[in-house]
Amino acid sequence: MDELKPKQVKGLVKSLKVRNALVRECMAEFLGTFVLLLFGCSAAAQVKTSRETKGQFLSVNMAFSVGVMSAMYLTKGITGAHLNPAVTLSFCVLGDVPWRRLVPYSLSQLLGAYLASGLVYLVYYDAIMDFSGGVLTVYGPNETASIFATYPSEYLSLGRSFLDQIVGTAMLMLCILSLGETRNTPAPPELIPPIVAVIVLGISMSMSANCGAAINPARDLGPRLFTLTAGWGTEVFTCYNYWFWVPLVAPMIGGVLGSAMYVVFIECHLPDPEPPKDLAMPSTTTEDSKQPATVKENGVELKMVHF
Amino acid sequence: MDELKPKQVKGLVKSLKVRNALVRECMAEFLGTFVLLLFGCSAAAQVKTSRETKGQFLSVNMAFSVGVMSAMYLTKGITGAHLNPAVTLSFCVLGDVPWRRLVPYSLSQLLGAYLASGLVYLVYYDAIMDFSGGVLTVYGPNETASIFATYPSEYLSLGRSFLDQIVGTAMLMLCILSLGETRNTPAPPELIPPIVAVIVLGISMSMSANCGAAINPARDLGPRLFTLTAGWGTEVFTCYNYWFWVPLVAPMIGGVLGSAMYVVFIECHLPDPEPPKDLAMPSTTTEDSKQPATVKENGVELKMVHF
Amino acid sequence: MDELKPKQVKGLVKSLKVRNALVRECMAEFLGTFVLLLFGCSAAAQVKTSRETKGQFLSVNMAFSVGVMSAMYLTKGITGAHLNPAVTLSFCVLGDVPWRRLVPYSLSQLLGAYLASGLVYLVYYDAIMDFSGGVLTVYGPNETASIFATYPSEYLSLGRSFLDQIVGTAMLMLCILSLGETRNTPAPPELIPPIVAVIVLGISMSMSANCGAAINPARDLGPRLFTLTAGWGTEVFTCYNYWFWVPLVAPMIGGVLGSAMYVVFIECHLPDPEPPKDLAMPSTTTEDSKQPATVKENGVELKMVHF
Amino acid sequence: MDELKPKQVKGLVKSLKVRNALVRECMAEFLGTFVLLLFGCSAAAQVKTSRETKGQFLSVNMAFSVGVMSAMYLTKGITGAHLNPAVTLSFCVLGDVPWRRLVPYSLSQLLGAYLASGLVYLVYYDAIMDFSGGVLTVYGPNETASIFATYPSEYLSLGRSFLDQIVGTAMLMLCILSLGETRNTPAPPELIPPIVAVIVLGISMSMSANCGAAINPARDLGPRLFTLTAGWGTEVFTCYNYWFWVPLVAPMIGGVLGSAMYVVFIECHLPDPEPPKDLAMPSTTTEDSKQPATVKENGVELKMVHF
Repeated sequence: MDELKPKQVKGLVKSLKVRNALVRECMAEFLGTFVLLLFGCSAAAQVKTSRETKGQFLSVNMAFSVGVMSAMYLTKGITGAHLNPAVTLSFCVLGDVPWRRLVPYSLSQLLGAYLASGLVYLVYYDAIMDFSGGVLTVYGPNETASIFATYPSEYLSLGRSFLDQIVGTAMLMLCILSLGETRNTPAPPELIPPIVAVIVLGISMSMSANCGAAINPARDLGPRLFTLTAGWGTEVFTCYNYWFWVPLVAPMIGGVLGSAMYVVFIECHLPDPEPPKDLAMPSTTTEDSKQPATVKENGVELKMVHF
Repeated sequence: MDELKPKQVKGLVKSLKVRNALVRECMAEFLGTFVLLLFGCSAAAQVKTSRETKGQFLSVNMAFSVGVMSAMYLTKGITGAHLNPAVTLSFCVLGDVPWRRLVPYSLSQLLGAYLASGLVYLVYYDAIMDFSGGVLTVYGPNETASIFATYPSEYLSLGRSFLDQIVGTAMLMLCILSLGETRNTPAPPELIPPIVAVIVLGISMSMSANCGAAINPARDLGPRLFTLTAGWGTEVFTCYNYWFWVPLVAPMIGGVLGSAMYVVFIECHLPDPEPPKDLAMPSTTTEDSKQPATVKENGVELKMVHF
Repeated sequence: MDELKPKQVKGLVKSLKVRNALVRECMAEFLGTFVLLLFGCSAAAQVKTSRETKGQFLSVNMAFSVGVMSAMYLTKGITGAHLNPAVTLSFCVLGDVPWRRLVPYSLSQLLGAYLASGLVYLVYYDAIMDFSGGVLTVYGPNETASIFATYPSEYLSLGRSFLDQIVGTAMLMLCILSLGETRNTPAPPELIPPIVAVIVLGISMSMSANCGAAINPARDLGPRLFTLTAGWGTEVFTCYNYWFWVPLVAPMIGGVLGSAMYVVFIECHLPDPEPPKDLAMPSTTTEDSKQPATVKENGVELKMVHF
Repeated sequence: MDELKPKQVKGLVKSLKVRNALVRECMAEFLGTFVLLLFGCSAAAQVKTSRETKGQFLSVNMAFSVGVMSAMYLTKGITGAHLNPAVTLSFCVLGDVPWRRLVPYSLSQLLGAYLASGLVYLVYYDAIMDFSGGVLTVYGPNETASIFATYPSEYLSLGRSFLDQIVGTAMLMLCILSLGETRNTPAPPELIPPIVAVIVLGISMSMSANCGAAINPARDLGPRLFTLTAGWGTEVFTCYNYWFWVPLVAPMIGGVLGSAMYVVFIECHLPDPEPPKDLAMPSTTTEDSKQPATVKENGVELKMVHF
C-alpha cells in the first residue's frame, strides 16, 4: 500500500492543475499575501492583546519579515513574489512585468490580505474580546483596529504622512532592485527571500513611527475592509479625516520613485550586459543579467523579474 | 602516539555502528528532539526563574529556533529531521515517508522530549526551587509548569485553542514544503536548517499568545509527562478541563491541512519535473526535483524528503 | 504597447549613463551613504520621538546594520562599498585603492549623509516638533540632536572618547579585512554585505555606550552639519568643549591601526597566493586571492577590493 | 607613486612572516580570543554601566556571538578557530588535533582573553568609575566584576553549577561537530562562522541564568586574572567559596562528553566515507569527509578540523 499511495497522491495532484497561467499566478500572489498578513497581523494581535507581555513592537516587525520570507519562497518562482501592488506597478513601469498583470495581481493580493485578516480575527477572537471588553474601536487605550490596518500618530499632518509612505516604499524598491543584478553585487538567488525580509525589517524599524509603515496598498486596504465588515464600523475609513487613502496612493508613487532613483544612480551606469556578438540575436537576451523567468502564455512571452 | 590515537578512536567508533536502519533513524529523531527541547525549555527556565532579567519572551522563541536549526543539522541527512509527529504524519500522507515510520519516529521524538525536560529540571533545579519557594504548581504567579509543557490563556475557549493549533501547524507545513522545490524558488539545501528555524521563530512570535504554540505533540506531551512524574502532580493533565489533548490532536490535523494547502495552491501547478524521455524509467525518478535521499532497508527503497 | 515600453525605458536608461568612472563611483558612494543614514537616523528618530514605545536602543543598532547591508548591495560592485572615509583611507594605505580616490569618495559620503539627514528631518518633522515642544536642543531630556550626530556621555573624558573611536574603527577594519581572503576562511562573496552588517551590529551593541559608535567621519559630520543649518544652532559643534572633532579624526587613525593589526597577525603569515610559475607574469596577479575588480579608467588600472 | 606604494606595502608584509607554524597558529588563537572577548565584554560593560538603557541581557549574548563569528573568519583557515581550551581538548580527544597543540593553544587563548579585558577596561574606565562610584567590587548592586568573568547566582549549589557548565559545553560540541559532515547535512563551509555564532547565542540565551554560560576556561580565567590585577582584589577568586575553578574544569569534561555523544548517536552510524578502492592508499584519506586542512610542519602532518 505504501507503494500505491504516492501514485494516488500524484494523480490527485495532477488533476488539480490549473491550465491558465494568469489564474495560477493570481493564486500564488493570493497565497503569498495571505501568508504575509497571517504572520504579521497575528503577531500584532499577540503583542497587543498580551499587553506586550508576549512580544514587543520589534517582534511585530520581525514577524512581518518572516512572512515576507516565507511568502517569497512560496511564490517567487511563479510570479516574482510581488505581494504588493506598489511592487507590481514598479515592475510594470520598469518594463519587467506586463501592464495587464497589474489589476489581477493587485486584486489577488487584496483578497489574500482580506482573508488572512479574517483568519487572524478567528484565531484571536477570544483574546480581542478579552482585551477590548467586547468593544471594537479605533481610538483609545483598548483600540484593536491597529492590529489589522495602519493608522497615523496623533501629531501627524496629512502631507507628512504622504511623504512618509512615499519615502518608505521608495527605500523598498531602491534596495531590492539591486539584489538580482549580476553586473553589480548580486545576492545569492536562493537567499533573496531572507535578504528582502531583512530590508523590510529595516524599513519597519525606521519608518513606522509616523503611520505604521504599510508601504503596501493591499496590506493596508485588505485588513481595513475586513475590520469594516467585522464590526469596527465605518470609523476605520472615516477616522483621522479619511486618512485611509494615503497608504493606498503614496506607496504607488514611492515605489516608482525609488525604482527611478535606482536606475538613475546605479543601473544606467553599469556595463552593458553583453557585447553584441551577433546582431541577429533576439532582443530579449539583453536582460539576461537579471535572469528573468520567461513564461509562454498564449504565445506571448512574459518576463518576470525574480528580484 | 598521536598517530595511534586516531586509529584507536576510529576502531571504537566503527564498533558502535548500529546495523538496523530504523534504529539508527530513531536514534537520530530522539537526539534531534532532545536538542530542540534542551535549548527551548532551558531558555524558558532561564527567563521564568530570572523573572525576565536574563531574557524575555522573545529570547525563549529564539532559543527554540536555535534548537530547531541545531537539531536539523544533526539529523536531516539521516531522517529528514522531522522532530515532530505532525511533520512525520504530513510526510506520510504526502507519500514521502512510509507509514510504518510514523509510530517509531513519534515515540523516539516523545522520548527525546521527555529526557530533555528531565535534564533541564536537573540543571535548573536550584533556580526552580528558589523561584517557586519549593512548591511545584500549574497556577499562580509562581507556577513553573509552563517552563515545560504549554498551557492555554485564561480567556481561551476550547474550540479557539483547537483552531489556534491547527492554524499554527498548517503555517509550518505550508512554509517549509516550498523550501526544497527546485521548480519554484528553492532555498539552498545546506541552509534549510536556519531558514526553517526562522519560520518557527515567526510562528512562535505570532501564534503563541493563545496557548504557547506547541504545534508539536512530542514537544508538548514529553515535558508534560515529565512534570507529572517529577512532582507537579496530575494537574498538568487535568487543568483547564483536561486541555492537554488539544496540542496532541490539533497539530496532526493542521499539518495535513497545511500540506494540502501547499499542494493545491502551489505544487500541483508547477511544471512537470521531467519530460518522460524513456517510459521504461523507474517511477521513483519523478520526484527528483525534491532530491529525496534513497535509503535501502531490507531491500525496500525508502524515500525521505530532506525538506 | 507592452512590447514597446521596455525598449523606450532601455533607451532612456542608456542615455543617462555617465562616462567618467570617478563620477559614477562618487554617485555610488553618495547613494550608499545616503541609504545607510536614511535607515539609521530614521530609526533613531522613531525610537526617540516615540519615547521607546516603537523600538529600543537595539532597534537603532539593527537599522544601521540593515542600512549597511542595503548600501553594500547597491554599491559594492562599483566602488567596494566604503561608505566611510576611514574605510577609504585604510584601503588607500593598504594599497588597494588609489590615493586620489580619498577626497572625492569622502566628500560624496559626506554629502550623502547630509542629504539623508535632511530627508529624515522632513519625514519626522512633526514627530520631532511634538517630542521637543518645538525647541531644537542638544541638552536635556527633550534633546533631539542625538537623532542625527553622536554626542559623548556626561562622564566621558576627551582621551577616553578618542580611544573609544580608535578601538571601534579598528575592530571594524580588523574584522572585515578577513572576509575576502581565500587563503583563510573567506565569506561567500555574495553574502559579504549581511556579514559586514552583523559586524557593525556587534560594534554598535558593544562600543556605543561612551559616545555613540560613529566610527565614521561622514556618518557623524554630515548629520552634524545638517543640524547646524536646520535650527539646532552652533551648539552641535561647540558642545562638550568642541568634542565634534573626535569622531572625525580618531576613526581615521583606528581604521589604519586595525588594518595594520590584521596584516601583522594574519595576512602576512598566509601562504603565498600563487607559486611563481612564470617570472614574466604581470605583478598585478599577486593579489588575485582577493579577487579585485579591475577597472580601466583613462588607461590606468584601478584595483578595488570588494571586501 | 600609486604604483609604488603597493609594492612597498607587500615587501613590508612579507618581511613580517613568522616561519614557525605553531607560533603562527598561536598568534591566530590569541587574536581570535582577543576579538571574541573584546566584543563580548565591551557589550557587558555597555549594558551594565548604562543600567540597561543602551542594551539588554540579550544584546550581551548577541555581541558575544558576533565576536565568535568575527574571530572564526579571522582564524578558521589557520587553526580551525577553537578560541576555547575545551574545544581544543575535544578535538585532541577526537584525534583531529595533535595533543601537543593543547597547551600552547590554551595559553594563547588565555592571553588573548586577558589583554582584551584590559582594553575593555581602558575604553570603559570612565563609565565603570561613574557606575561604581570608584569602588571596584564583586558584590552588590554596583558590582562591576561580572562585566569580565562569570559568577554564580546566589541560589546555586556547587554541584548544580558544575552540571550547568558540563551541559552547556556538551551542547556546544554536540551541535558544532555536525556542521562539517558531508555524509549528513553539512553547513556551507563559508557560513560555518555565523552558524556557530547562532549556536553560541542559543546556549547563552538558555544556559546563562545559573552562572553566566562561560563554557570556556580561557574566556573566564583571562578576565578574572585581569580583574585581580586591576583592582578588584582577591575576591574575584575567593568569592562564592572559591567557585572560580568550576568554569575551568567543567567545560573540559563537558566538551569531551558532548563530542562522545555526537559520535555515539550520529557519526558512528554514518556510511563509510569512501569505499577502499585501493588498500595501499594512505590512511589519512579516511577522514576526507571532514575536509581537514593538512599542514606540513617539521615533516609531520597535522590535521586540523575546520569545523
